[in-house]
Amino acid sequence: MTESSGSPIAVLGLGAMGRALASAFLEGGHRVAVWNRTPGKETELVAAGATAAATAGEAVRASRLVVVCLLDHTSVHDVLDPLAADLAGRAVVNLTSTAPNEARELAAWAERHGIDYLDGGIMATPPMIGRPGSSLLYSGSKTVFEEHTPALKLMGTADYFGEDAGLASLYDFALLSGMYLMFAGFTHGAAMVRSAGVSAAEFAERAVPWITAMAQTIPMATAAIDSGDYTTDVQSLDFNKAAVDAIVRASRDAGVGLDVIAPVKALIDRQVADGHGAEAFDRIFEGIRPLTPSPVR
Amino acid sequence: MTESSGSPIAVLGLGAMGRALASAFLEGGHRVAVWNRTPGKETELVAAGATAAATAGEAVRASRLVVVCLLDHTSVHDVLDPLAADLAGRAVVNLTSTAPNEARELAAWAERHGIDYLDGGIMATPPMIGRPGSSLLYSGSKTVFEEHTPALKLMGTADYFGEDAGLASLYDFALLSGMYLMFAGFTHGAAMVRSAGVSAAEFAERAVPWITAMAQTIPMATAAIDSGDYTTDVQSLDFNKAAVDAIVRASRDAGVGLDVIAPVKALIDRQVADGHGAEAFDRIFEGIRPLTPSPVR
Repeated sequence: MTESSGSPIAVLGLGAMGRALASAFLEGGHRVAVWNRTPGKETELVAAGATAAATAGEAVRASRLVVVCLLDHTSVHDVLDPLAADLAGRAVVNLTSTAPNEARELAAWAERHGIDYLDGGIMATPPMIGRPGSSLLYSGSKTVFEEHTPALKLMGTADYFGEDAGLASLYDFALLSGMYLMFAGFTHGAAMVRSAGVSAAEFAERAVPWITAMAQTIPMATAAIDSGDYTTDVQSLDFNKAAVDAIVRASRDAGVGLDVIAPVKALIDRQVADGHGAEAFDRIFEGIRPLTPSPVR
Repeated sequence: MTESSGSPIAVLGLGAMGRALASAFLEGGHRVAVWNRTPGKETELVAAGATAAATAGEAVRASRLVVVCLLDHTSVHDVLDPLAADLAGRAVVNLTSTAPNEARELAAWAERHGIDYLDGGIMATPPMIGRPGSSLLYSGSKTVFEEHTPALKLMGTADYFGEDAGLASLYDFALLSGMYLMFAGFTHGAAMVRSAGVSAAEFAERAVPWITAMAQTIPMATAAIDSGDYTTDVQSLDFNKAAVDAIVRASRDAGVGLDVIAPVKALIDRQVADGHGAEAFDRIFEGIRPLTPSPVR
């Protein structure tokens, strides 16, 4: 069954992100019931056509799809636990920032109460919602995802990762960690060149195309990581160790903190010490990976 | 004075990189004298038209431009020190991987002996030399750079950063540290999703466009870094702290090593503890930067 355009949606939680989500649904022609723990956040949404619900239960009972965007995992339980009976048979899409295991716990709670649960991670800032570049990742109930795809797409691109409700959050966090470390790497480089009076703006002119070009080489590393065979006939860990050792020395010479580069050296050193110096750099994965990883699907 | 095509070039050091450089000069129509500490590396180059010099001095005396690509800083002194008199009045381009302070030391040594010294960093692997994507960074003698630009461009794009001979190496290392941390970030993310059986190849399909898109936002951070004014009205350090704390917890839950993500958390925590939670993430620069940085040029 595909939802009809304009079907009623509840949005619980009207922080900057919740308000952006509710706006996107309104613009898409849905009836939207909004609720926030403290009043006053709904004014503009009501002016745009939303209904202000006096309680979360009132919003839920007016809707088929319940979109949750609260502070954290605890607040999701605080709001949803008393409404379990009302939520039974309805679809809950939880876009609150929750950890993978928290999403899994919520999915189990929902299943016990006959609630269809889809977890989502938002790869966008509030102003991006409903605009190009906004991407949302989902996992959990495939039924909810498929039935409500048109509504979900009003917020941004909608990708479904699987029945494991923790997957979307895991992907979200994995992508964010890649971003944070990339930013940390730029920051380290900017600190190095600052020692010679080069501005971050000047460094960025060269660093952005360089990091962009190097990011495109990532897929070449994945076969080794997935197979565990790190044999290489190009640059080995020994070569990378020499380079990173030199970067560490030069950073120290420049008075730059070793905070983020020293751990990369440590990961390389560990593999070299274990006798893998002739293998590929990507082997540092073995120093980070889960000790008992799931087999690759 | 611009060099004539075909002017004689010496290449000292015939590792994989030195051989690639010599080949590029030969293909560009130069007479090339090659030398290596241990013989046997020159065979293919001689077949392609190079002259094998019996000694480094013989190669130097046959040339106007001396390109050096040896193992390290020490080996550069080992080879060049006895030839100081022969090198006087000639141009030396040192492409050996050396640290910024080592390049500065060599420049001072060269100046004492009346040698024109240009230091270079190669942003390419040997097979890339002379092909699109090969980029070389230079600093030191502007005279050498300008006079020999046509020959230098046979190896790859040629960019000059300034009279400080350490600048090219500093830039080189700064860019490489950005690359290594970006790779480390991908690796951490790949380890997170592996906990749910997702392959690195599958993760890369999403991570590469994500990292690419996020890299394009770097220039937005540089004004804050360069001015030291980290005021923001978008996502603050407090927001980023919540996100990175959640990533750290989720990584631990997944059994993934905190090696590279914990230092990012520590940098954020330090700024928040110092009362800067309402300011921008880019403030982590203040935790890494040189304690007595040069003013921005």
